[in-house]
Amino acid sequence: MSFTRVSDVGEFGLIDRLHRIVAPTEKKLPSLKKGIGDDCAVIALPNAKAQVVSTDLLLEQIHFDLLTTPMEHLGAKAISVNVSDVCAMNALPLYATISVALSEKISVEMMESLYKGARSAAEKYGIAIVGGDTSASTAGLVISVTVVGEADAEKLSYRNGAKVGDLICLTGDVGRSFAGLKILMRERQLMVEFYRDNPDAKAVDFEPDIEGYEKVVEKHLLPSARLDIVRYFAEKNIVPTSMIDISDGVGSELKHLCKQSDVGALIEENKLPILSEAREVADEFEDDALTYALFGGEDYELLFTINPKDLDELTANFDIAIIGEVKPKDFGVKLRDMYGHEEDLSQYSGFQHFKKPDDDHNHQHDHDHDDHEPLNSDD
Amino acid sequence: MSFTRVSDVGEFGLIDRLHRIVAPTEKKLPSLKKGIGDDCAVIALPNAKAQVVSTDLLLEQIHFDLLTTPMEHLGAKAISVNVSDVCAMNALPLYATISVALSEKISVEMMESLYKGARSAAEKYGIAIVGGDTSASTAGLVISVTVVGEADAEKLSYRNGAKVGDLICLTGDVGRSFAGLKILMRERQLMVEFYRDNPDAKAVDFEPDIEGYEKVVEKHLLPSARLDIVRYFAEKNIVPTSMIDISDGVGSELKHLCKQSDVGALIEENKLPILSEAREVADEFEDDALTYALFGGEDYELLFTINPKDLDELTANFDIAIIGEVKPKDFGVKLRDMYGHEEDLSQYSGFQHFKKPDDDHNHQHDHDHDDHEPLNSDD
Repeated sequence: MSFTRVSDVGEFGLIDRLHRIVAPTEKKLPSLKKGIGDDCAVIALPNAKAQVVSTDLLLEQIHFDLLTTPMEHLGAKAISVNVSDVCAMNALPLYATISVALSEKISVEMMESLYKGARSAAEKYGIAIVGGDTSASTAGLVISVTVVGEADAEKLSYRNGAKVGDLICLTGDVGRSFAGLKILMRERQLMVEFYRDNPDAKAVDFEPDIEGYEKVVEKHLLPSARLDIVRYFAEKNIVPTSMIDISDGVGSELKHLCKQSDVGALIEENKLPILSEAREVADEFEDDALTYALFGGEDYELLFTINPKDLDELTANFDIAIIGEVKPKDFGVKLRDMYGHEEDLSQYSGFQHFKKPDDDHNHQHDHDHDDHEPLNSDD
Repeated sequence: MSFTRVSDVGEFGLIDRLHRIVAPTEKKLPSLKKGIGDDCAVIALPNAKAQVVSTDLLLEQIHFDLLTTPMEHLGAKAISVNVSDVCAMNALPLYATISVALSEKISVEMMESLYKGARSAAEKYGIAIVGGDTSASTAGLVISVTVVGEADAEKLSYRNGAKVGDLICLTGDVGRSFAGLKILMRERQLMVEFYRDNPDAKAVDFEPDIEGYEKVVEKHLLPSARLDIVRYFAEKNIVPTSMIDISDGVGSELKHLCKQSDVGALIEENKLPILSEAREVADEFEDDALTYALFGGEDYELLFTINPKDLDELTANFDIAIIGEVKPKDFGVKLRDMYGHEEDLSQYSGFQHFKKPDDDHNHQHDHDHDDHEPLNSDD
């Protein structure tokens, strides 16, 4: 048997191959409306309802670093990232399972904090935690969450429904989570150096300094799924023509939407909502805030398209920005920068797993970021 | 914050504490019939149906060893252990999600084998694989599977329904999987020694010798969920008064059933179905086959109780053994051995995670087994 490295085919190449293998099983479930390939799987229920299912694995050193991540935040985030996928279908979450594998360095109290965080997120979204699994781990902490939700079948928003002329919209602001990660990584480095230089120091002696960066750090550690927006859509009777949540950066997610909808897109740099604090962090690191916004990832905001007839209802919500317009496929996926120059986004990719690490923590983010430095508008 | 080791409270102690934390969220889902504490969570659906959900984490070095486990078998087993939980509710499985985290030593081809195994199991059970997640791992291979199933609500079998006078029944035979594990561990040891002594040998040079042990090894690597039995129940219109699947050994599972049903039990050693090949393995290792059967685990057979009125229908199925009777709670949970002596099973426990390792592979099994050597009837 040959040995092809996963990094040679990439995350999406691997997913494609694996999907092809299990695709024949989809026929076993006549009620299956959508299998692998959207934010959630979709299964038809009686009464014109549909069930949606999202699942995510979170691993220590890949998705989080226990030196910078409080357990309670981690438990909440594990729930939120899956609820975010449910929201991206325009569905309401109902219940979650949470499984955890832990090594000996994790205490009962740490696990209790993790579950308290999961509980507080579950309470915020109004969902039940109904089951799970616990196991030992010889390596780091592993968390697996599955969230099940529900919607009226005709109100679901898939990734493949964007139409030419639709408006491209974005909730909240983007790039903030990546700015928070940069600050956390800097404090982590300072902490490591502090304890190296002060071997007798106590665990409480080092205090990370995040003053002035609270909003970006909080966004990274404790992101919120935009269930409020799904409820707003229901109230206003709006159904986005397509939708996806921002786990990999708005640039990458836009490309997914366009590919699956078989369309192109033009977004405007000056419409992209970027928090001033995120811009300040980028400046401090001599980075470009636009790169954070397009490819930073983990903002868990919603990127969606609407029919222009729904515009009036939307603009009443101050937390939604219209950032561009759906174009024909041969237009490509482009960003118009401040100077009017249209840059093709297809040459850049967002966060991907399975890249070779170049340092020992959250390498995929930094790596990714470095890869996309050409996007810097000073170039 | 204090640091209590998980091994100090044990797996079930930890689960109890975590369950208490998230239990308040159960109120958020009025349709929730059963949260944490049975083989599956149960959620009421319209039309008197109920949905059941099971999820399991499988980790390298904790649940499997890649030196002895073909990837295809591993993929199938990950599906089967969750389908087994669904069967233990007397429900039919519908669909699964499968998430995998992998390190650099895992090739694309190995992942494809894993998914082919998952597909073949899914096809056997007639279920769809509808989604999942893939991620990098700095540690070993991690697999998380969630299976969703369905049943008529009034046909579900919970762990807590056993009544005094009910018959205790068991499908297939028990202890076989643990016998298979013993053989695999022996061959693993021989392989390690072979390559230590022959550093220039090629990967194909060592051939494990499992001749005469095929049935026990296959049972360990490729267990089958007893969906056939659930279908048999449906056909014969039998609803077990309680049911659980055998992941930790029939002794441990019987104690769970009794605790949750608030009853006692008496089972007969000479009624316990143990394959002759499993007995031979136990003899070879100078172990007691009864210990394999009671506490070996991973047989994924069904342990259930029925009202005696259903006896005639059951005995028509040659793959079901009647092994004992439900007794009042104060009777305790006992095994009557070949000599008529009644031994209290409550002093022994089955497979538990979070014991201190005493060797580097599948330690929990060996450890467990050693703990229960007093059960040996030669003592």
